[in-house]
Amino acid sequence: MKTIALFNPIRDDLERVERKMRQAIQTEHEQLTEVLQYLLANGGKRIRPALVLLSSRFHPADEDKVMALAAAVEILHTATLVHDDLIDGSLLRRGKPTLNTFWGPGATVLTGDYLFSQAASLAADTQNIRVVTIFSHTLAIICWGELRQLFSEGTNQLTRENYYRRISSKTASLFATSAEAGAVLSNAPEEETQALRDYGHNLGMAFQIIDDVLDFIGDEAQMGKPAGSDLQRGIVTLPTLHFLSQGNDPETVLQVLNGAQRDETTVRAAVDAICASGAIEAAVAEAHRFSQCAQEALQVLPANQHRRILFDLADFIIQRDY
Amino acid sequence: MKTIALFNPIRDDLERVERKMRQAIQTEHEQLTEVLQYLLANGGKRIRPALVLLSSRFHPADEDKVMALAAAVEILHTATLVHDDLIDGSLLRRGKPTLNTFWGPGATVLTGDYLFSQAASLAADTQNIRVVTIFSHTLAIICWGELRQLFSEGTNQLTRENYYRRISSKTASLFATSAEAGAVLSNAPEEETQALRDYGHNLGMAFQIIDDVLDFIGDEAQMGKPAGSDLQRGIVTLPTLHFLSQGNDPETVLQVLNGAQRDETTVRAAVDAICASGAIEAAVAEAHRFSQCAQEALQVLPANQHRRILFDLADFIIQRDY
Repeated sequence: MKTIALFNPIRDDLERVERKMRQAIQTEHEQLTEVLQYLLANGGKRIRPALVLLSSRFHPADEDKVMALAAAVEILHTATLVHDDLIDGSLLRRGKPTLNTFWGPGATVLTGDYLFSQAASLAADTQNIRVVTIFSHTLAIICWGELRQLFSEGTNQLTRENYYRRISSKTASLFATSAEAGAVLSNAPEEETQALRDYGHNLGMAFQIIDDVLDFIGDEAQMGKPAGSDLQRGIVTLPTLHFLSQGNDPETVLQVLNGAQRDETTVRAAVDAICASGAIEAAVAEAHRFSQCAQEALQVLPANQHRRILFDLADFIIQRDY
Repeated sequence: MKTIALFNPIRDDLERVERKMRQAIQTEHEQLTEVLQYLLANGGKRIRPALVLLSSRFHPADEDKVMALAAAVEILHTATLVHDDLIDGSLLRRGKPTLNTFWGPGATVLTGDYLFSQAASLAADTQNIRVVTIFSHTLAIICWGELRQLFSEGTNQLTRENYYRRISSKTASLFATSAEAGAVLSNAPEEETQALRDYGHNLGMAFQIIDDVLDFIGDEAQMGKPAGSDLQRGIVTLPTLHFLSQGNDPETVLQVLNGAQRDETTVRAAVDAICASGAIEAAVAEAHRFSQCAQEALQVLPANQHRRILFDLADFIIQRDY
């Protein structure tokens, strides 16, 4: 399991979550099980399950239910990635082949659906109706966000409001749900539960902004995709919005965005123009503000080791360069 | 709303379910809402929601929760059809264009996902953890059944056991869940709840066998697809299994199944051979047995109007010729 040093104090529990996930996706069909394990192993740093674990630690909670929820959020996340890659036609994720490179769309759709169903079953295993309700609403928010994006392509994309709405659905909603539902399972007082939800939301916003920044300045080998891949697919993110609102010559960037020119040289020129404009720094500063909001939300929680990790996580999120 | 005369006594409630569904799929995006409404309107005879309603009527139940569940099962059913059509590459369903004929796979996948999420939210609205658990397990069973079929293509399909397993996952599981969860919402005694589950399972098995029979003998205009479309796609159903086990000359049928010959004339010849062999009658007789099992399961329930409708529904299911 790849994770981050910050999570060392909960490493054993994260390993339990891994086992729980592997168990949930076990099928009688060896090849399919292998593929599902590949998808999970190719996942990220387990930030969402860690949020569940940490958020549940301020009051006594049933550990089995916490583990089930932690596994549920990560499997849900994996399911959305499988369908996203199909929708985008992406052939690589984190430098590794996506499912749709070696399977047809049918098997890819079904595999995503199966992962959704396992996530839903694990969420139901918490036996907590509030958790299940939050969980299913989050799925609705994620799907609806994607649909809205698809339907508004080329129309009303170019505002910061739309961008925030998009990353809130796509990323921050599951971060918020992970933290909130973890708190709910520990029967935390409502004020703390809402504080953890706020924390998760702001952390998710910061996380996604940095993700979008890394698409411009990240190392291609580490990212597993070339710089400017969002631009190249016509997706407007925060650095581009800053660039366009700062009175720079937009010609090259717009040519890439609207699809008139998407060759490597033009994309590189557009990326360079955005990087040279101060737009990256402006976007990072916004991520910083979300990270600070996340940290401020933690103040109502009891001061303990878990609060410390959550606090440090908000710093880590905006400093990461993987 | 198209439904069947048998459901006239619960027609008003079925209309309420329709409104609940329309409300659940309402989005801020007009075009998308229209498409979702088209998908729902293009659905079937609302047998699954009727099962929920009828099964909940043996003891007092919270009507809002029953409506939410009834809407949930029909929306879940619609979601699986959207993804199925994409997986199969079907261009028509019930004679009308499928979503993937006018949208790309991306929008089709997301629309199905969005419907799944709305179904899950409605199931959570029952605030009943047992219902939610049954519901999410059913989704898992349906997905897993499809995956198994995909992975076993061309290998171990040609047994009756595999066929029963497939239609149990694909169809009977949601029928069983509709009836069981309806009973759970009315706090029915466990014996009655299990009886209704049995009823739903057997009804679903009979329903799917007849569906598969109609693929051979149904009226093309009413079915909205040519006879033998399963055969043509290499799918083995009960009539074909009977045909192959009865010592008939299997040459033509196997040629269609294995894809060697799939032109209209050969498919027609294969369909005719199966229809002339007595295999249709044998399959209908099996559907009849499932229908009788369904009716027998009802015996432990209080004798009332709703039990009568369920009883008659089991007769209707095997007589339908739409």
